[in-house]
Amino acid sequence: MKAEPPLLQALKGAVTKRPPIWLMRQAGRYLPEYRALREKTGSFLDLCYNPERAAEVTLQPIRRFDLDAAILFSDILVIPDAMGQPVRFEAGEGPVLEALADRAAIDALAPERVEAHLAPVYETVRLVKAGLPERVALIGFAGAPWTVATYMVEGGSSRDFARTKGWAAADSEGFAALLAKIEAATLRHLIAQVRAGAQVLQIFDSWAGALDEVFFEDLVIAPTKRIVEAMRKAAPDVPIIGFPKACGLLYERYAAETGVDAVSLDPSVPLDWAASTLQGRVAVQGNLDPVLLLAGGETMRSRVARILAALGSGPFVFNLGHGVLPPTPPEHVAELVALVREGKAA
Amino acid sequence: MKAEPPLLQALKGAVTKRPPIWLMRQAGRYLPEYRALREKTGSFLDLCYNPERAAEVTLQPIRRFDLDAAILFSDILVIPDAMGQPVRFEAGEGPVLEALADRAAIDALAPERVEAHLAPVYETVRLVKAGLPERVALIGFAGAPWTVATYMVEGGSSRDFARTKGWAAADSEGFAALLAKIEAATLRHLIAQVRAGAQVLQIFDSWAGALDEVFFEDLVIAPTKRIVEAMRKAAPDVPIIGFPKACGLLYERYAAETGVDAVSLDPSVPLDWAASTLQGRVAVQGNLDPVLLLAGGETMRSRVARILAALGSGPFVFNLGHGVLPPTPPEHVAELVALVREGKAA
Repeated sequence: MKAEPPLLQALKGAVTKRPPIWLMRQAGRYLPEYRALREKTGSFLDLCYNPERAAEVTLQPIRRFDLDAAILFSDILVIPDAMGQPVRFEAGEGPVLEALADRAAIDALAPERVEAHLAPVYETVRLVKAGLPERVALIGFAGAPWTVATYMVEGGSSRDFARTKGWAAADSEGFAALLAKIEAATLRHLIAQVRAGAQVLQIFDSWAGALDEVFFEDLVIAPTKRIVEAMRKAAPDVPIIGFPKACGLLYERYAAETGVDAVSLDPSVPLDWAASTLQGRVAVQGNLDPVLLLAGGETMRSRVARILAALGSGPFVFNLGHGVLPPTPPEHVAELVALVREGKAA
Repeated sequence: MKAEPPLLQALKGAVTKRPPIWLMRQAGRYLPEYRALREKTGSFLDLCYNPERAAEVTLQPIRRFDLDAAILFSDILVIPDAMGQPVRFEAGEGPVLEALADRAAIDALAPERVEAHLAPVYETVRLVKAGLPERVALIGFAGAPWTVATYMVEGGSSRDFARTKGWAAADSEGFAALLAKIEAATLRHLIAQVRAGAQVLQIFDSWAGALDEVFFEDLVIAPTKRIVEAMRKAAPDVPIIGFPKACGLLYERYAAETGVDAVSLDPSVPLDWAASTLQGRVAVQGNLDPVLLLAGGETMRSRVARILAALGSGPFVFNLGHGVLPPTPPEHVAELVALVREGKAA
C-alpha cells in the first residue's frame, strides 16, 4: 500500500512529523526558467491555455525544490473568459475585461461552456499528474465567486470595489444571479480538474477582506458553503482549502461555517489565535510574509521557527501568506524548504 | 459652564444619548464647493499650505451637515516634506517622493524643521478654530510612523511594501532610526496642532494591516505607544484616536497596549466582537463601508441601524470605515447624519 502524500494527510487533520510545504505562486516570475518560457509564449492566457508549456511551468519548482505539492499553473479569471466575458492581461496593468453593464450581460454568461473552453487546462492537469512523484500532491484551484465577480463588474483590478459592492447593495437579486453563474461555472471547473487528476482544491477569495460582516456572510460564506457542499457529493475525498485573504476576525466564521478542510492565513493573522481558535476545527496553512522570503537571512529564519513552534503541533501546512514575489532569489526558497524539513522549532 | 463637545465626551468614555458623528475625508472631492476651490489652487500641497483656503475647505462640510467635528484639511505626507524629503502629488498617480536610499538619507532628515515648514498648517488650525461653533470639535492628525515610512522608503504608494519591510528585516537598527526621525517630527507636529487649537488627535496607520504580529509589535504598537505617552505629558486633556486600518485580530493588542483613547474600525471588523472585546477598554469609532454611503438607499439605512444597535450602548463615535469616496452624492451624507441623529436603532 502506498502512503498518502503528506499534504493530504495534513488536510485530513493529521499532525505530520514535519509539516508539508508548498508556496503560492511557486511557479512564476522569480524562476529564470519560467521567465525564459514566458518570453517565448504570446500572452499570459496563451501560456495558461498551452498544456505542454503550462505543465512544464507547473513542474519547474518541483524539480528545483523538495516541495509537497504542485499547483496547476492557471488563473482565476479563466472562469469569466470561459463564460463569454473575454479576459486579456496587459503588461503592468493587470487583467482587463469589458465590465458587465447590466442584468442582460449577466444572463448572457454561459457556465456550460467551461469544459470545452478550458479543455487545455484539464489536459495540463493530466500532463502534470503524469509527471509528478506519488508523494507530491497536485492542487487544482478556482477563485471564489465574490473575488471573481469583482473583476467581472469592475472590468479589472480595483481599489475599493465600488461598482461591485454598489451593485450588491442596490440590486441584491441581480448580484445573486451573477454569483450563481460564477458558482455554476466554478463547480464545473473544479470537478473537471478533479477528474483530470487534481487531489486537493484551493478556493482563492483574495478580496474577502474588503467586506463588512453582512456582505461577508452573503457574498463569501454562502457561495463558498454551496460550492463545498456540492464538491462533497462530486468528489468526497478531495480536501478543500479556503483562502479568504485578510478577513481578520471573520476567519473564525469562515472556518466554522463553510465546511472547508483548511484555511490559508495571510500574514496578519496572529499565530496563537490561529492555533487556539481555528486549528481545532480545520487545518491551517500559512503564513510567512512573502517579503521575508524575499529578504531572507536571520529575520526569515526566526519567523519560520516562530510559525513552526506555534502551528506545528496541530494539522498544518507551511506556506506563505500571499504569493512569492517576483524579485525573490530562488536560493531563499531552497533555504526555506530546508528549514521546514528540518522542523527546527517543531 | 459650557458643555463639552459630544465628540470629546464620547472619547473620554461617556455613552452619549446619540453618538457623535464625523466622516473621514468629509472635506473633499465629493463636494462641488471643494472641487471649485481645488481647481483655483495649484497643487494639492499648495492647498494644504494655504491657510485661508485649507480652512475654508475644512469648514465646508460643517456648513452643509450637522457634524460633531471638523478635521483639519491636510495630508499625512507633510511630515517627510517638512523633514526635507519633498513630496509632490501627481494627478491619478498619488504621492511621489524621492525614495530614501540609505542610512545617510535617514540621518539627513530634520524633524526640527517641522514648526517652521508647517507654520501655514498651524495657521489653518487657528482659522478653523475661530470659525467653529463650540459644540463642534476640531480634530488634528498625523500619519503613524510605519505608514509614513512606507511612502518615504517606497517613494510613493505600494502594493506589498517590499522595500520597506525588507529594510526593516535586513537592518532593524537603520529602520529604527527612520522611525525615530518620523516619531520626533510627528510629536512636534501634533503638539503644534494642539497649541493652535486642535482638541482631538487621530493617528492614521493606513497600512498596519500589511504586517505580521512581530512587525506589528515593533513597527505599529511600539512607536504609537511612545507617541501617546509623550502626548499625555504634552497635552494630557487631548484624546487620541488610533486607526490601525485592516489589522484584524491585532486591533485587540493595539487597543490594550498603545494607550489610545479610541480605535477607529475598518468595515471588516465584526460589530459584536468590537463591542465585547474593544469597547470595554476604549471608545470605538466606525465603521460603515464608504461604498454603502455612496450607494445609499435601504442597504445603507439597515447597515447604519445595525451599527447603532451593536455599538451605541458603549462609548462610540459614528464614522465610516475608510474615507468618503469622491463620487458620493452629498445628499447621502445628509441622510446619514440625520439617521444617526435620530438614533433609530439605539
